[in-house]
Amino acid sequence: MTLHFRVLHEDAGSSARVGALTTSHGTLETPVFMPVGTQATVKTLTPSDLKEIGARIILGNTYHLYLRPSAPLVQSFGGLHGFMAWDRSILTDSGGFQVFSLGHLRDLHEDGVTFRSHLDGSQHHFTPETVTQIQEELGSDIAMVLDECTPYPASEEEARISFERTTRWAARARRAHARGDQAQFGIVQGGMYPELRRESAAGLIELDFPGYAIGGLSVGEPKAMFYEMMAVSAAALPPAKPRYVMGVGAPEDLLEAVAQGIDMFDCVLQTRLGRNGALFTRSGRINIRNARFRADAGPIDTTCDCYTCRTFTAAYLHHLFRAEELLAYRLASLHNLRWTIKLVEDMRAAIRDGSFSTFHREFLAEYATVDESVREQQRARWVAARHKSVR
Amino acid sequence: MTLHFRVLHEDAGSSARVGALTTSHGTLETPVFMPVGTQATVKTLTPSDLKEIGARIILGNTYHLYLRPSAPLVQSFGGLHGFMAWDRSILTDSGGFQVFSLGHLRDLHEDGVTFRSHLDGSQHHFTPETVTQIQEELGSDIAMVLDECTPYPASEEEARISFERTTRWAARARRAHARGDQAQFGIVQGGMYPELRRESAAGLIELDFPGYAIGGLSVGEPKAMFYEMMAVSAAALPPAKPRYVMGVGAPEDLLEAVAQGIDMFDCVLQTRLGRNGALFTRSGRINIRNARFRADAGPIDTTCDCYTCRTFTAAYLHHLFRAEELLAYRLASLHNLRWTIKLVEDMRAAIRDGSFSTFHREFLAEYATVDESVREQQRARWVAARHKSVR
Repeated sequence: MTLHFRVLHEDAGSSARVGALTTSHGTLETPVFMPVGTQATVKTLTPSDLKEIGARIILGNTYHLYLRPSAPLVQSFGGLHGFMAWDRSILTDSGGFQVFSLGHLRDLHEDGVTFRSHLDGSQHHFTPETVTQIQEELGSDIAMVLDECTPYPASEEEARISFERTTRWAARARRAHARGDQAQFGIVQGGMYPELRRESAAGLIELDFPGYAIGGLSVGEPKAMFYEMMAVSAAALPPAKPRYVMGVGAPEDLLEAVAQGIDMFDCVLQTRLGRNGALFTRSGRINIRNARFRADAGPIDTTCDCYTCRTFTAAYLHHLFRAEELLAYRLASLHNLRWTIKLVEDMRAAIRDGSFSTFHREFLAEYATVDESVREQQRARWVAARHKSVR
Repeated sequence: MTLHFRVLHEDAGSSARVGALTTSHGTLETPVFMPVGTQATVKTLTPSDLKEIGARIILGNTYHLYLRPSAPLVQSFGGLHGFMAWDRSILTDSGGFQVFSLGHLRDLHEDGVTFRSHLDGSQHHFTPETVTQIQEELGSDIAMVLDECTPYPASEEEARISFERTTRWAARARRAHARGDQAQFGIVQGGMYPELRRESAAGLIELDFPGYAIGGLSVGEPKAMFYEMMAVSAAALPPAKPRYVMGVGAPEDLLEAVAQGIDMFDCVLQTRLGRNGALFTRSGRINIRNARFRADAGPIDTTCDCYTCRTFTAAYLHHLFRAEELLAYRLASLHNLRWTIKLVEDMRAAIRDGSFSTFHREFLAEYATVDESVREQQRARWVAARHKSVR
């Protein structure tokens, strides 16, 4: 096994912990936020930028890379690391989320899924075995098994059928996995049913993966339900293995995840919101396009140490967004990612010095979260847009 | 006078020279290429990037900045330098080219020009005096007088009326100019008529500007005519003052300009072509979208020292362009600008060691220039697009 995980500190007041995770491309500390690099690039940023903001591991999307430029081509360039010139760790997803959620699904059966490419409509087939092989060609440090992301809402019967197939697929992926310098994670599903989540975790634990992900969350369910399912899933997973909650990245959710003992997370929110002018600050999200920033001589966030905040005023960012300058999207992505990575660094420091619960409480007191109805509207808009173009 | 210019080396076989130009923001060597930062940003790039590629002076567009975010706002942030966080030299154009060429011209008269904003259709008035004041508010190191860019083709009578007005406007701008830490340049016009070019230069020289620009070139005329008019104009200007040819940037044109004794040039070609996937190499321009680059493991240009060429393969750039990733536009802009700045650095070195004519000849032997008919088609497409959106 090429993945090593060691818990270094445990928080007394919560399940939060600091760990050291070693992959084939180095050791990093957990909890860790993974920027998303869908098409072999974290949108607008270079590998140099990513190092500057403290990124230690990024995520690549198997579905996108398989379709373009293709896994064999990436492999011929030394895998994803060589192709995109990133020498730190990479985790690849299984492509399942894209196939299941993007509306291109043609047919789901026990063997796998048949779907159409969003690029040219061509038909493709993913199985637990092919998805394992594609990720071995991509050469990521951590590969994910093919899973079915149970939609919300789903009946208990639907959720059971779904997670049981995910578990059978996980067993097949585990058998198919051969690459010695790559670790493979299983994925807990089970919809919004605590007992199914526990059964899902138990089935995966029998397969003895080096790490476990929690999938099927933040898919439209109420926040309280999301938190409950995350807690149930995390508690059902072995403490000695890394726990990864997929697709979660709102600041308040990261704090909750860490409090529940989650070690890894990824989210497109930072870069996608950034490109829309929504920027994180310690007091909440702002929209830099708002007229109130037209002559604002301060940085976006006085507590942020990113290049954008160190160099430019909010007024300049406002101007770039109004003028639709490409630099706007870059500076905003850089800020949102660094801001998030720093938040996670701060969480690790707080866990270390025993102040995590205080940190958590104080953060929530200062940070105005986005109202759930607003969030739901944003999600609906995104889902609508997503059906037009997969980006 | 705040501008100092000294000729350091003169080429024996041509009019090429190396000079030292000192503005309020430092000393730079000429010949110098100025990247264009239309809206207070060189598209996709940060000030850090610009320093890394060796940019010493950039250009800002008065027309755009006047309309958005407005000169008083820029002034309140410490001028353009403070607003965009660029502490090296800045030259601002007069806005005349945009007003005259973008089709928004409402009325041209002796006092100035009335035009409509491309942003909201609002009506505005530029005079030699207001344009001088706007640039003083922007706080550039070098300001340009308001001129009329004579269109091509134009009759001799039209060209005479046009350049004579430009000269009268130059005199008014000179009188209006008050800012002590800013230098003001006059602009030679005269269409494609050598005698008018000489008369235009003579009229400006009487006004004793610290530097002179050559305008109205590369506006659709044949290459030979462009070169002849540039040579006539350059020869008519005082050798002790810097000579700036406006809007010229194709590699072969830069070599010709330097051979004729031009010291400064600016062009949007580098960044605009870059965003279209057209990249400079020593053997000519390539289109990175072309299928032949799909699996090309070499850099874009083996002779280039830019971050893009040092870090990524042509195949990766090809992928980014095919995937329409924002990073593509950034890496291409960085390459084209650094490639051009390095070409100019190489020219300076060749002038210094007496090998400029050889360098010029060898460059042209290796570099496949774009066919004139192709160039004309590209220009027509750009002009058509420009009438829709001023970018």
